Amino acid sequence: MENSDIIYGKNSVMEALIAGNREINKILISKNIHSDNKINKIKELAQERGIVFQFVAKEKFQPYAEFNHQGIIAQISPIKYYDLDEFLESREHTNSSLVILDGVEDSHNLGAIIRTCVCAGVDGIIIPSRRNVQVNSVVEKTSAGAINHIPIIKVNSLVNAVQTLKDSNWWIIATDASANDNYYDVKYDDMNFAIIMGAEHAGVSKSLLKASDFVVKIPMQNSFNSLNVSNALSAIIFETLRQKLVKTRK
Amino acid sequence: MENSDIIYGKNSVMEALIAGNREINKILISKNIHSDNKINKIKELAQERGIVFQFVAKEKFQPYAEFNHQGIIAQISPIKYYDLDEFLESREHTNSSLVILDGVEDSHNLGAIIRTCVCAGVDGIIIPSRRNVQVNSVVEKTSAGAINHIPIIKVNSLVNAVQTLKDSNWWIIATDASANDNYYDVKYDDMNFAIIMGAEHAGVSKSLLKASDFVVKIPMQNSFNSLNVSNALSAIIFETLRQKLVKTRK
Repeated sequence: MENSDIIYGKNSVMEALIAGNREINKILISKNIHSDNKINKIKELAQERGIVFQFVAKEKFQPYAEFNHQGIIAQISPIKYYDLDEFLESREHTNSSLVILDGVEDSHNLGAIIRTCVCAGVDGIIIPSRRNVQVNSVVEKTSAGAINHIPIIKVNSLVNAVQTLKDSNWWIIATDASANDNYYDVKYDDMNFAIIMGAEHAGVSKSLLKASDFVVKIPMQNSFNSLNVSNALSAIIFETLRQKLVKTRK
Repeated sequence: MENSDIIYGKNSVMEALIAGNREINKILISKNIHSDNKINKIKELAQERGIVFQFVAKEKFQPYAEFNHQGIIAQISPIKYYDLDEFLESREHTNSSLVILDGVEDSHNLGAIIRTCVCAGVDGIIIPSRRNVQVNSVVEKTSAGAINHIPIIKVNSLVNAVQTLKDSNWWIIATDASANDNYYDVKYDDMNFAIIMGAEHAGVSKSLLKASDFVVKIPMQNSFNSLNVSNALSAIIFETLRQKLVKTRK
């Protein structure tokens, strides 16, 4: 398979099989690992879908030694990135949500963000084609397979993307440590919204802050105030979900 | 310095100097790194406190190659663990909060949890002396120095610790995927409470679930429902903070 990616680890391989939206060429399992529920599930799904799996000597995994592969890798077609127009036209959006990443550089952070977004029901993640980490093997692994459950939208310009969203009646919320409003002061339960999270060090860029409808902060309780970007997003995104669920219950 | 730890990375070293509650024997800086604001701040603080810093050839860092040391390490006294009685007697507790970790095994997760707890103003973190990752160099680095800003309380038995807390009028909230109540259904703004987070795979142990006053879940929006433990904690702990801050404002 030309232009194929390697994914590794039990969860990554299992979730790719469950999602079933990518072509899997081959699964390699080390002869030295013990079968467990996940490995059995992987074999079962692979058989159903007619995908080759081979038991190989552990030496075959030498090239992947730097990864925590758990004795299993798969050769898979790269994820399909969406473009924004395609995403917007794909369905009616009512009280939908997007997360926009502006310069997130760490693969582990991107993986954790994808995982959180899927659990919280976010509808898509927008990343710029430059100056941001792309989806790689580490991202796939850290996302624990969540990558297969959410559209990743790649755009050339975040500023243009934000303008497109505003033209389509989406509200834009940027996060910034010096904001006046707290993230929970915004009412998220009756609009389509996109939340912009900034780079680990530099934060959200000025042009995007300027283009946003709201700028919010997380109120820090300590002079040590450096929250990891995936944990910051988790606090905000689950607050938006809380508001929606509490409203539905009423 | 006997029985000393190594910490590495600019933030870890800088935060240890700022906190000033641990004995630093020596700081080693690679001759090959460029000075920046953080390095300058480190030099300034070290000079003020009379701590030796040496510029060394990058070969000196060879033993630490597996770590993302950024060309700076420090030899430091181990963190001081608290015991629970000491923590409880150290001050009056009113609307205080604790996080209890039951079997968290991943160093990166513990580091991220410490960082989130400090930002959200949590008063302490309880870990068991066995079957849980302890504070090591990776935890220190991932916490970005936050470890110096919060008491880590080590106990032999979590069940006994929970009983001690209940006897001292603390409320215990455990998290479990099969709970009926959502985490935001609990009113956190008028009590001392401890939140129990479970192991990455096994969750909170049965004996602790049984001993808890509330068992809550995070409502998952997808069949893929595996949230990273530090991100799960972030959602819950910032909700407790939101409730407190909203109440104060009224």
